[in-house]
Amino acid sequence: MAKTRVHNFFVSLDGYSAGTSITHEAPIGGAERLFAGFDGRVIHGLGAIDDPITVDRALTSTWGQGIGAEIMGRGKFGPQTGAWTDDEWRGWWGDEPPFRTPVLVLTHHPRDPIHFGNGTSFHFVDAAPDDALERALAFADGRAVRIGGGPSTVRQFLAADLVDFMHLVTVPITLGVGVSMWEGLAEVQDRFTIESVTTASGHTHQFWNRTTGR
Amino acid sequence: MAKTRVHNFFVSLDGYSAGTSITHEAPIGGAERLFAGFDGRVIHGLGAIDDPITVDRALTSTWGQGIGAEIMGRGKFGPQTGAWTDDEWRGWWGDEPPFRTPVLVLTHHPRDPIHFGNGTSFHFVDAAPDDALERALAFADGRAVRIGGGPSTVRQFLAADLVDFMHLVTVPITLGVGVSMWEGLAEVQDRFTIESVTTASGHTHQFWNRTTGR
Repeated sequence: MAKTRVHNFFVSLDGYSAGTSITHEAPIGGAERLFAGFDGRVIHGLGAIDDPITVDRALTSTWGQGIGAEIMGRGKFGPQTGAWTDDEWRGWWGDEPPFRTPVLVLTHHPRDPIHFGNGTSFHFVDAAPDDALERALAFADGRAVRIGGGPSTVRQFLAADLVDFMHLVTVPITLGVGVSMWEGLAEVQDRFTIESVTTASGHTHQFWNRTTGR
Repeated sequence: MAKTRVHNFFVSLDGYSAGTSITHEAPIGGAERLFAGFDGRVIHGLGAIDDPITVDRALTSTWGQGIGAEIMGRGKFGPQTGAWTDDEWRGWWGDEPPFRTPVLVLTHHPRDPIHFGNGTSFHFVDAAPDDALERALAFADGRAVRIGGGPSTVRQFLAADLVDFMHLVTVPITLGVGVSMWEGLAEVQDRFTIESVTTASGHTHQFWNRTTGR
């Protein structure tokens, strides 16, 4: 079974999967158009969305299946950089973060964990990818670990050859500026078998399954 | 939200989705080739299967999402017809039927319900589709009802215009003989919007979403 999975990673035609200026007002930092038409509630299954049930929605609904923990970069947790100045910040998601598992937040500035009632907890660790993965697998208790992004975090794990499965969604738009999905990853595709389907919305879903032994 | 959903219905190029001779030894009655390459464990999510994670598997993993009850024909429950002569029969599935919800079995011969430890229960009712659906919705408690088959049961519900969503999988084989998916359903497609994608395995997944008011 895949131990590490990337899910629902939307990428523009010019290779960007996030914006460059994350603020409290703009969590995706200018790349909002990547997610136009995406009803994020679908990560909890088809029972959570309105009609119609599309192929896009069915494919993106697999986000949480068999997942026991997530690893994310600090930029996904919040807009602060450097030493924590706002200890009250508990993430973008209010009292019900969608993760419902432990989440490791990679940061050079560790702090106490934060626990929520719905199973979500944030654990702040200063660790290289392989060490972070080892800790996340312990949290996951036999289930898989989702590498949750942002793009630079996914790139770090790809560069370290620690990604078993990756679901990318090519969105037929150009952004012109943003955080690259691909920088520094020449020939990364050689380690994967890739299946693609294109849906009625014009999105192309790519399933990357790692084919080489570790 | 779709109230009634059909999932993972495999259909041959010549329109058959089951075999004609169901016995204890052949639950699918001669149409086993329809399901070659399908790992049925995927209905419980990607965490239940081995690698690789394919588009086929992601799409068929949505079977249980937001489902609170199933309606099935008697032939799906077992090979007996007429009055029950074998009261010990508890279905094909052993002690862990995969449904994990109440299941209504349509039969002209009602009998006492059967309960399993994993949330599955079988309730035997002699009812027309609209009445059966009303009872199943009560069991489903706000969630959707899966119309579970076999094909003649799905056809009955389609003919009564009681299907909101349907996931069919066209398998590129001919069977020559079997139970038809389409008999008596000319122009049924006019009530639906249909999206299709074809995967690397050569299977074509069709998502039928009901577009007319009820």
